Amino acid sequence: MSIQGKTAVVGLGYTAQGRVPGRTALSFYMEASRNALADAGMRASDVDGIIIQPCPTDHSISFGSLAQELGIALRFGADQQAHGASAATIIQHAAMAVHTGLCKSVLCAFADTSQSAPLRGSVIYQRALGTDAAYGLFGVASGYALAARRHMEEYGTTSRQLGAVAVAFRKHAALNPRAQMRQPITIDDHQASRLVVEPLHLLDMCLVSDGGRAFIITSADHARSLRQPPVYILGFGQGHPIDSLLRRPSLTTTGAVQSGRLAFQMAGVSPADIDVALIYDAFTSAVIVQLEDLGFCAKGEGGPFVEDGRLELGGPLPANTSGGLLSDVYLQGWVGPPEAVLQLRKQGGERQVRDAELAVVTGSGGVLSTHGTIILGDKR
Amino acid sequence: MSIQGKTAVVGLGYTAQGRVPGRTALSFYMEASRNALADAGMRASDVDGIIIQPCPTDHSISFGSLAQELGIALRFGADQQAHGASAATIIQHAAMAVHTGLCKSVLCAFADTSQSAPLRGSVIYQRALGTDAAYGLFGVASGYALAARRHMEEYGTTSRQLGAVAVAFRKHAALNPRAQMRQPITIDDHQASRLVVEPLHLLDMCLVSDGGRAFIITSADHARSLRQPPVYILGFGQGHPIDSLLRRPSLTTTGAVQSGRLAFQMAGVSPADIDVALIYDAFTSAVIVQLEDLGFCAKGEGGPFVEDGRLELGGPLPANTSGGLLSDVYLQGWVGPPEAVLQLRKQGGERQVRDAELAVVTGSGGVLSTHGTIILGDKR
Repeated sequence: MSIQGKTAVVGLGYTAQGRVPGRTALSFYMEASRNALADAGMRASDVDGIIIQPCPTDHSISFGSLAQELGIALRFGADQQAHGASAATIIQHAAMAVHTGLCKSVLCAFADTSQSAPLRGSVIYQRALGTDAAYGLFGVASGYALAARRHMEEYGTTSRQLGAVAVAFRKHAALNPRAQMRQPITIDDHQASRLVVEPLHLLDMCLVSDGGRAFIITSADHARSLRQPPVYILGFGQGHPIDSLLRRPSLTTTGAVQSGRLAFQMAGVSPADIDVALIYDAFTSAVIVQLEDLGFCAKGEGGPFVEDGRLELGGPLPANTSGGLLSDVYLQGWVGPPEAVLQLRKQGGERQVRDAELAVVTGSGGVLSTHGTIILGDKR
Repeated sequence: MSIQGKTAVVGLGYTAQGRVPGRTALSFYMEASRNALADAGMRASDVDGIIIQPCPTDHSISFGSLAQELGIALRFGADQQAHGASAATIIQHAAMAVHTGLCKSVLCAFADTSQSAPLRGSVIYQRALGTDAAYGLFGVASGYALAARRHMEEYGTTSRQLGAVAVAFRKHAALNPRAQMRQPITIDDHQASRLVVEPLHLLDMCLVSDGGRAFIITSADHARSLRQPPVYILGFGQGHPIDSLLRRPSLTTTGAVQSGRLAFQMAGVSPADIDVALIYDAFTSAVIVQLEDLGFCAKGEGGPFVEDGRLELGGPLPANTSGGLLSDVYLQGWVGPPEAVLQLRKQGGERQVRDAELAVVTGSGGVLSTHGTIILGDKR
C-alpha cells in the first residue's frame, strides 16, 4: 500500500537555455518532452499521462497542447500551478497516479520565455504576496528580503554567509556546460554587487531565463526495463504555512519544516543520510533557512553551516551541483529534480558527487510558504 | 490496493448564486467551504488538503488563500485548471491523495463572479480553441456549434431534440429553489429563442453566474463517522482527445468514450445500472453526444434517446436534476457532483429520484476534449 519506492524517474529532458530569443514556450515544452522520451528510451505513445506547470509567459499552453503535439491520447492529464513548488508537487501527483494505476507513465514538463519574451504587466509574481501588497509589500524579492533581514536580526546571519551560497553554486555552474553563468565569483564580488532589496544583493538573486525541462515518472517495476538507471521516489511531503508574511507567526520558519519531516519519514532516512542536496535557491537566504528547517543544522545555525565550502563539491553536503537557480538557470522548481536524477545515475560528469545514493530536492512558491520536498535514491 | 470505493464525498457547500453583485470571488470560495464543513460536521482543522479550480475572474486566489482564511496548515494543496473538467478531475486527485495517505480530508472548491464582475479581455475562453483560432474559429460556442452541426449531418439529429434537453432540465430547475432559471419552457420557446451560433439557440446554451461550490473528500472509513450518509467514489476516468477540432479525427466522438469506459470499468457497473445522470451541459448538444459516448445509447441515437421525457424525473434516466448548467447555475463542472451526492443521500426534496443508488457525473473542458467521468454510489 505504501507508495514509498514504488515509482521512479526515468527520463530527463533539457533544452537550450538562458537567453534564447525567437523561441515559443511551446517549442521549449516540446523539446524538453522529446528529449525526456529519448533519454528514457520511450516512444510518445508509451506515455499516457501528462502534468505541466503552466507557462508564466504563455497561458494558452495546457497538458492537452503537449498531448496534441505528441499525438497521444491520454488517460490522465493536469495543469498544476504552485509556482516554485510545482515540480516538487507535480512529482507527487504523478507518483500517485502511477501508483493507483490511473496511468502507466507521466510526462511532467515546464517551460518559460521570461528572459527573451517576458509577459508584460503579469500578475504572476504579485500573486505570492497578494494580501501583503495592501501593506506596501510588492513582489517576491521584497518578501525574501524581509525574511532574510529577520534571520539576520534573530540569529546574526551575515551577508557574507549568504554570499558563500552564491559562490559555492557558481563554482558548480563553472563545471556545468549548460549553465547560464559560469564565471567564478568571490565573496568580495558578492559584497560589491549592488543591493537590490536590502539586505539582498544582485548576486543573492536567481537568474531570469528561457528554456524548458521535462521528466517522466513510471512504476519502479517498469523503470527497470528502460534505458537509464532508475531513480526511485522514496519520499515526499508538502508544507504550507500561511501565505501572508505579515500574518505568519514566524518569518524564519518555512514550509520545509513539515514537507521535510513528511518526506524523510516516508523515505525512512534522515538528513545525515543525504549525499547531495538540491535546495530551491531563488535567493541565497532561502537555502540557509531551508537547510535549517529540513534538519541539516539547528534553527539559526544555517549561516555558519554554509561557510567553509560545506555546500561545495567535495564538502560534506554538496548542494545545487548544476549551479541552481542562482547560476545554472531559473526554471522555477524544475532545476533541482533533473540534477538530482543525474547525480544518482552517476552522470554528473565533472560535477559528479562521488557515490551519490540519496538526494533531497525542494521547491517552493511564495516566500517559502508553499513547499515540497522529495527524497530520491538509486535503490528502492 | 484498488481505489474503488475507498473514498467518499462527505460535505457539500452551496452559496448564493446567479446574479449576486458586490461579492468577491474569495467570499464565494469561503462561503462554499464553510458550508461544506458544516454539512459534513467537520471543523476547518479536520481538513488537511485543499484543491481548487482557480477562479476565472480572480487569478490571485490559490489553495493557499483558502488555507490562510480557514486558518489551517495543509499537508497537501494544489491549484488545478482543466476548465469544465476540473471538478471531475480534482475529485480523482483528492481521492488519490486520501487513498495513498498523503492527507486525510481534501476540501475541493470553485467560485466565479462572471455574471456580476466578469474579467474583461480574458483569454480564458479563447484558450480551449487556441490553435483553431488561427482558422477563424473563436470561442467555445462556435466549436460546440460546429460539432452539433456535424452530428445533425451525420445522424439526422434535430434542433427540437436539442430542445428536449433544455426543456427537461428547466423542468427540474423549477423544482430547485436555488436555480437561476425556474420559469418552465417548451420546445416552441426553444425554437423561437434567437440563434446565437447556428445551429445553437440561446436556450441551447448555459447560463453565466456568480457563486461557488465546495465538497470534501475523505476515506470511506472516516466518512461513516461523519454527519451525512457517505457517498462513495466507485469509479473514475479521464479522456483527452486532441484539443483542436480541426485536427480531431471525429467531431462527434468525445473524451467521454474513454473516461466513461475507465470509470464504469473501475466501478464494475454499466450504464444500465445508473439511476441518475449528471451530464456536463454547457450546451444541449453536449448532453446528447456524451450519452452516446458513455454507452447509454448507440452512436447517433442520442437525438431520439432524449425525446419523450426520457431525461426527466420519472423517466428511465433522470438527468441534471438540479437544472444543470442550462438552468440551475453555470459553475463550470461543479454543478453535477453536489447534485449527484444530494440525490444519493436522498436529500433531493421535490426533485429526488426515487431509490437513487448509483450516479454518473461528467465534466469537460474545451469542446468535450478534456473529459472526466465519476461513478458515485450510496454503497461501497
